[in-house]
Amino acid sequence: MSFKKRTVNCGELNEKNVGNFVVLNGWAATVRNLGGLIFIDVRDRFGITQVVFEPENNPELAERAKEIKSEYVVWISGKVRLRSNPNKNIPTGLIEILAEDFAIINKSELPPFPIEDGIETNEETKLKYRYLDLRRPELQKKLIVRNSLYQIIHKYYKNNNFIEIETPVLMKSTPEGARDFLVPSRINKGKFYALPQSPQIFKQILMISGFDRYMQIVKCFRDEDLRSDRQPEFTQVDVEMSFIERDDILEITEGLFATIWDELLGIKIPLPIKRMTYSDAMNKYGSDKPDLRFDMQINHLNQVVKNSEFKVFQDVISNDGLIGSINVKGGASLSRKIIDELTEFAKKYGAKGLAWLKFVDGECNSPIAKFLTNDEIQFIKETNNASDGDLILISSDNKMRALTILGALRLEIAKRMGILEQVKNKFEFLWVVDFPLFEYDEELGRYFAMHHPFTSPHEEDLKYLDSQPSKVRAKAYDIVCNGAEIGGGSIRIYDNEIQQKMFDKLGLTEQEIEEKFGFLIKALKFGAPPHGGIALGLDRIAMIITGTDNIRDVIAFPKTTSGLSLMDGSPSEVELSQLYELGIDLYKKQ
Amino acid sequence: MSFKKRTVNCGELNEKNVGNFVVLNGWAATVRNLGGLIFIDVRDRFGITQVVFEPENNPELAERAKEIKSEYVVWISGKVRLRSNPNKNIPTGLIEILAEDFAIINKSELPPFPIEDGIETNEETKLKYRYLDLRRPELQKKLIVRNSLYQIIHKYYKNNNFIEIETPVLMKSTPEGARDFLVPSRINKGKFYALPQSPQIFKQILMISGFDRYMQIVKCFRDEDLRSDRQPEFTQVDVEMSFIERDDILEITEGLFATIWDELLGIKIPLPIKRMTYSDAMNKYGSDKPDLRFDMQINHLNQVVKNSEFKVFQDVISNDGLIGSINVKGGASLSRKIIDELTEFAKKYGAKGLAWLKFVDGECNSPIAKFLTNDEIQFIKETNNASDGDLILISSDNKMRALTILGALRLEIAKRMGILEQVKNKFEFLWVVDFPLFEYDEELGRYFAMHHPFTSPHEEDLKYLDSQPSKVRAKAYDIVCNGAEIGGGSIRIYDNEIQQKMFDKLGLTEQEIEEKFGFLIKALKFGAPPHGGIALGLDRIAMIITGTDNIRDVIAFPKTTSGLSLMDGSPSEVELSQLYELGIDLYKKQ
Repeated sequence: MSFKKRTVNCGELNEKNVGNFVVLNGWAATVRNLGGLIFIDVRDRFGITQVVFEPENNPELAERAKEIKSEYVVWISGKVRLRSNPNKNIPTGLIEILAEDFAIINKSELPPFPIEDGIETNEETKLKYRYLDLRRPELQKKLIVRNSLYQIIHKYYKNNNFIEIETPVLMKSTPEGARDFLVPSRINKGKFYALPQSPQIFKQILMISGFDRYMQIVKCFRDEDLRSDRQPEFTQVDVEMSFIERDDILEITEGLFATIWDELLGIKIPLPIKRMTYSDAMNKYGSDKPDLRFDMQINHLNQVVKNSEFKVFQDVISNDGLIGSINVKGGASLSRKIIDELTEFAKKYGAKGLAWLKFVDGECNSPIAKFLTNDEIQFIKETNNASDGDLILISSDNKMRALTILGALRLEIAKRMGILEQVKNKFEFLWVVDFPLFEYDEELGRYFAMHHPFTSPHEEDLKYLDSQPSKVRAKAYDIVCNGAEIGGGSIRIYDNEIQQKMFDKLGLTEQEIEEKFGFLIKALKFGAPPHGGIALGLDRIAMIITGTDNIRDVIAFPKTTSGLSLMDGSPSEVELSQLYELGIDLYKKQ
Repeated sequence: MSFKKRTVNCGELNEKNVGNFVVLNGWAATVRNLGGLIFIDVRDRFGITQVVFEPENNPELAERAKEIKSEYVVWISGKVRLRSNPNKNIPTGLIEILAEDFAIINKSELPPFPIEDGIETNEETKLKYRYLDLRRPELQKKLIVRNSLYQIIHKYYKNNNFIEIETPVLMKSTPEGARDFLVPSRINKGKFYALPQSPQIFKQILMISGFDRYMQIVKCFRDEDLRSDRQPEFTQVDVEMSFIERDDILEITEGLFATIWDELLGIKIPLPIKRMTYSDAMNKYGSDKPDLRFDMQINHLNQVVKNSEFKVFQDVISNDGLIGSINVKGGASLSRKIIDELTEFAKKYGAKGLAWLKFVDGECNSPIAKFLTNDEIQFIKETNNASDGDLILISSDNKMRALTILGALRLEIAKRMGILEQVKNKFEFLWVVDFPLFEYDEELGRYFAMHHPFTSPHEEDLKYLDSQPSKVRAKAYDIVCNGAEIGGGSIRIYDNEIQQKMFDKLGLTEQEIEEKFGFLIKALKFGAPPHGGIALGLDRIAMIITGTDNIRDVIAFPKTTSGLSLMDGSPSEVELSQLYELGIDLYKKQ
């Protein structure tokens, strides 16, 4: 159990070290035996260094080296020399070590998949043997970038006078929004802690306490039915500031992204980042997180076709609906089959159908052409700035649905036509601002807070609070990059009366308010400063920076979409005695 | 809901700013009305600035200012001028602001206790109104120091090439050591996650994955019956390294403490930090975390009194026990009452009684003097290096018990005699090394791992593993400061066979091993590097650095000793429907 400690790592040697005597520690990444000449690539976190055992030089050693197999842990000493066949693709590719001595520190069974980049092994096997998967340089690199993210973020906020404060993991269950994970209390049987969905209330409390600028990189938890890009535990960069207005938070946050992109990618993000109202984002892109790397805006046709005799259009117009369209440049070449597929796609978003017009050789080819006048077709073409070879897709529906359908089609077409591939190295940031304060749930017949119930309304919209709640805009903002929401926040209500009014509007009873938020309401009565903040999705940012669309690539020990950790087998059954001690039991149907 | 934003904070103005027009935002810390002249101390995180409203200057404004009450949030604008009665105790004490305008941003109810340092309010009220307690400068300062700790720690490990990696909060329950907090899984009903008691296994897995140097500042959880200095969730600086030996970890860790003490206190810790074996620490100080700020070592008397005819001594010697003593310098002046109290104190540690010898005016005064020869008394006196005016306390018992009793007495006497008070500004660091690998539990009649079952034994002691397990030393180490354990770690077993043997010794069955640690055992088979690490108690370090003995002073939102958060009222009852959805029920006695 002893070994010769390394004098250098496997990534640092180059031609300047020729002649040096060195010791390496690491894993045998590849072992090749070329007629007695044994080549071993020794790998560690820092890189790979080639070692050669020459029988003519040291026959006994070369014989012994035959024991080394893939993924064995070894120490090897020897002299650095130039390679006869240099590999210019890796930093150490010009040199190799002529081995003088070595020992096997630890053996390895044959790994179930090769430890190399770009392997096709199924995800389940890789997750089960996560410790081996994590040896692959491409995964290591992503986690090392994630580490750099932490460092840049800590430093940035420190330089801006923020204080890191830890908020509790064991807190009160306040079921608004997603489901809480619960933790039974053994000392207080029958009672439960909840894991935080976010430290929202605590960071507001910290502002009331006068901490002025708070930040934390913090684990948050949501017990949701998982989608492929969600994890039950995720990491948030959590920020709150006092005595500020919206733009102060936007500026501080922009500065962070500019720093991250500059330091990690060498890219200068032009500041300030563009701002767009929620209303504009929906009207132009059919999304509250538009991907601005490409254009293809939605064109509204209600004015253009308002006198049309086409009944579908007439109905939509008289019902305050929307006739919206996008122009698929060069889309006239899309086959009928593909247009049918797009129609099916649109139906998933609630479309009843999809109208289209192709412009080919100066002619308009469209199933609805016969219902439209030539002028109307011309107007539609002009409004969409279409020319020969283009395809116009039209959705006529209630306004939000039509916009959502067109927004989804816009992305789908960008994917299908290779536009996303063309722009994959671009980064387009955007602030979406002025979200509605409320969302109306048609099924439940009541309003919900679109962000959370502590979001401040715009002062000038307060007058609509009772009469037209859906008209009230919130001082809420999301930051979007390449069509992904990477953060969101708001200016908070700091006036206790407005906060009470908000809860009323949300249909919370006095008792519910007291049980769930009583302490915040109380705290607001003791001199709360104006404050607001933002929460950024660290996992999402890491994904964008490292160019992956698999969230499991940027989390060391991720869970599957069923919430399982295949490596350690959690969650797992526990002893019933453990449960009884906690005052709980498995639920048995009566 | 609008306000005039500050141009300066409340801690930055001084005589150089005289004549500047400024705007302050903050809380009215104190309001004094001196015959119409109104003085308001405006407070924020950065300090306090005095504002004065002069009726002769602006009668309407001074009249309006009477509305400002304690803890109201205000903005105030005006000109900086020199004070007529400077206060040299605060940085802004030479100046004041002559108010020109102001508004109340938010009102406050009368706080239940004054927002000032050194208040005597009971802890329960302070915890309930934590947001107000946190406004007090002394608490804010402690959390700001804690923030500095984070920053220094992150930077230190980054500069030493460590990678921060987040390990899961939702993990597998492996009930060894303390109790796990459990989290029921809704998606996998009947199964449970556990919150980590430490990321121990994950950091070892990361070493097996080749990450080489890992660190994380991480929340850990223990469901224990709480003591006053424990919290159910606590923060750990977690570190692991590969291809190293014990001293590499000790050195890296020492460097961290040297950096922290230097940057936060301006104190140079002499490096390397002293190392003492567990055996020496117990023999000399009766503790595995000796406070070295004062001496008062334990002196062993077995040799000195081996021929004594005193039966108590004879019995102890023939039973392989220990006759140990400490010399309380100047202790001869302690009254019989105090000696009785010390005897009672010793009994709490299992003592049957306490023998003592006082030396006054050349005479020995002792209840056991009559059983001892003059030579024996003289030898005891000399061995203890005692002189006139000293008190020798003797414990004769089985060895570990005698040492523990004397170690406890040593600390108790240091407290009672004001020695701790004298040394309170000293910092004495110590490494305690070579802990026993096993602890024998007399009640359960089996061995337990003194640290944890992954701790490596010393190679040269492996031969005792079967025959004399208690003789096997572990490659384990604790770092101690002023008698408090502030961290501990070990070199881990990286050989799968030794790991299996360890589990055998601990009486774990094949099935238990497989269930609890199967994935680690498996991972060890695929080429584990030599590795080891340490975990440091951040809360404890923050306490020492800020000079408090109340752990709640260094945690923003602490829990009581019953695990309650008095501010938010957690843990709390939840809806039964929430439980049913999780597949659990409250336990009902049949």
